[in-house]
Amino acid sequence: MTDQDQRRSRLALNQATTRDLNVEQVIRCCAEAGVEGIGLWRDRVEDAGADRTARLIRQAGLTVTSLCRGGFFTSASASGRAAAIADNRRAIEQAARVGAPVLALVCGGLPAGTRDLDAARAMVTDGIAALADDAVSHGVRLAIEPLHPMFCADRSVVSTASQALAIAEQFPAASVGLMLDAYHVWWDPEIEATVRRAGRRIFGFQLADWVLPLPADVLLGRGHLGDGCIDFRRLDRAVRDAGYDGWTEVEIFNRAIWAAPAARTVRTVVDTYRRHVVLPAEHGQPRASGAGLTVLPEPS
Amino acid sequence: MTDQDQRRSRLALNQATTRDLNVEQVIRCCAEAGVEGIGLWRDRVEDAGADRTARLIRQAGLTVTSLCRGGFFTSASASGRAAAIADNRRAIEQAARVGAPVLALVCGGLPAGTRDLDAARAMVTDGIAALADDAVSHGVRLAIEPLHPMFCADRSVVSTASQALAIAEQFPAASVGLMLDAYHVWWDPEIEATVRRAGRRIFGFQLADWVLPLPADVLLGRGHLGDGCIDFRRLDRAVRDAGYDGWTEVEIFNRAIWAAPAARTVRTVVDTYRRHVVLPAEHGQPRASGAGLTVLPEPS
Repeated sequence: MTDQDQRRSRLALNQATTRDLNVEQVIRCCAEAGVEGIGLWRDRVEDAGADRTARLIRQAGLTVTSLCRGGFFTSASASGRAAAIADNRRAIEQAARVGAPVLALVCGGLPAGTRDLDAARAMVTDGIAALADDAVSHGVRLAIEPLHPMFCADRSVVSTASQALAIAEQFPAASVGLMLDAYHVWWDPEIEATVRRAGRRIFGFQLADWVLPLPADVLLGRGHLGDGCIDFRRLDRAVRDAGYDGWTEVEIFNRAIWAAPAARTVRTVVDTYRRHVVLPAEHGQPRASGAGLTVLPEPS
Repeated sequence: MTDQDQRRSRLALNQATTRDLNVEQVIRCCAEAGVEGIGLWRDRVEDAGADRTARLIRQAGLTVTSLCRGGFFTSASASGRAAAIADNRRAIEQAARVGAPVLALVCGGLPAGTRDLDAARAMVTDGIAALADDAVSHGVRLAIEPLHPMFCADRSVVSTASQALAIAEQFPAASVGLMLDAYHVWWDPEIEATVRRAGRRIFGFQLADWVLPLPADVLLGRGHLGDGCIDFRRLDRAVRDAGYDGWTEVEIFNRAIWAAPAARTVRTVVDTYRRHVVLPAEHGQPRASGAGLTVLPEPS
């Protein structure tokens, strides 16, 4: 097995990429495409049942790479914050039951009707502090996911890897770290320096491409690797050099991809991961303008 | 005159807020609303002529606070980069002719078909280096405007104030500095520390609110102060504490605002600046959910 093959074998599919499949269907798609790792989502796991999900994944010989997602710690009321922590405890328990080593945390935006970023950010740290021991006792690590700053108001007041790392470093290195998603951090002029500092605090690595124009719902603007402008090799090299030796999930939110046949989507994920991460750069040059996107249906 | 009044008197209208007005019309609107400063745009100045614009502004007793904009240094070709520098020289000359102390620089995104952020960022520094002496000799300061990271691919590979400051610091403090727009920097967990470091390198300060949901064209999602979630007082305090004693421009890109009667828009700018920047916080609490936006037509 070459180095390239070894790296390719670490590709995982994040379930959000094939959002409409149930657990059995997504497991089958992964098996057919030779993808050996899978990042799960709580709603789909709840649909199938956590223990049944774990059994199906074990039977298929797959590895669970993460559970998405906990977080959303920010609320204007104490009862709202307590409810968030209770929900995160359930997420930790679910992660343990399905064998997910990592729970990704999308930390929450500004509470409705407020403008105090410092207060919201303190709620995030307080929330993680309330959960850290619980996570350790379940064998689950908490991975703070910095979200692109365009989500600061409504999804995550944690906007940069550096900021996420500063929160994580308030806790033991084995329990709280980072989920780095290329889509959220690619623009950051300090990302490589932060990744170096983060080292073993990098608990997960996710990929989706930045495609223009952004759609009306910017949450759904992500593309297959190669359809946008992110240099994935650069980020991959940075996280590997920092000591990360875990899986790489491809996690794409995109209505056109959700509408496409899932088996083809997973094959595309495998192919584009190979072309834009594993192989040398000459195999993955940016597409010429007007060349079309991978998400579009193939000509029939 | 109280301190509050003094601060209020530093409000300037950026011409983009009333995009469809020509120079004469926007001058009249400012005079009627008691706004004494104006940030100009090159296209409107070209329509009216630079010397005529300068004369009209002088006659009205207004102060020009900035000219928007130069920049767009990034291009895949050397000829494209040379053309950008030539265009910036014209912008510097125009700034001098209309009496603008500052030329705002929107530095440019990734060149089409490329993914190399470092290369694009080097083009920005090279472009500014080519212009710095020219700007000094015209009495014009160059203000690098970090744009929100959601514009990194297509408008500015300079995404944070810290990054802009690191570029500016390669040049004399009197010639290259920062244009800080709250809309672009409000989310940044390091903004207050960066503003402190920037000190006299802050050459301009602009305001527009972050309103959700983002529209399909995210360039146009800005709102009147108070319609979104930015704590303007916090940023205003930070820039004043850093030693900035210049004007504050309100610059809003929003189709609904452009469609509204301009005189009313300028009155709204004056009113919301007073309520959300000048007066203490209790006068400018976030609107209750569903309270509607200032940009919507008043009930008739």
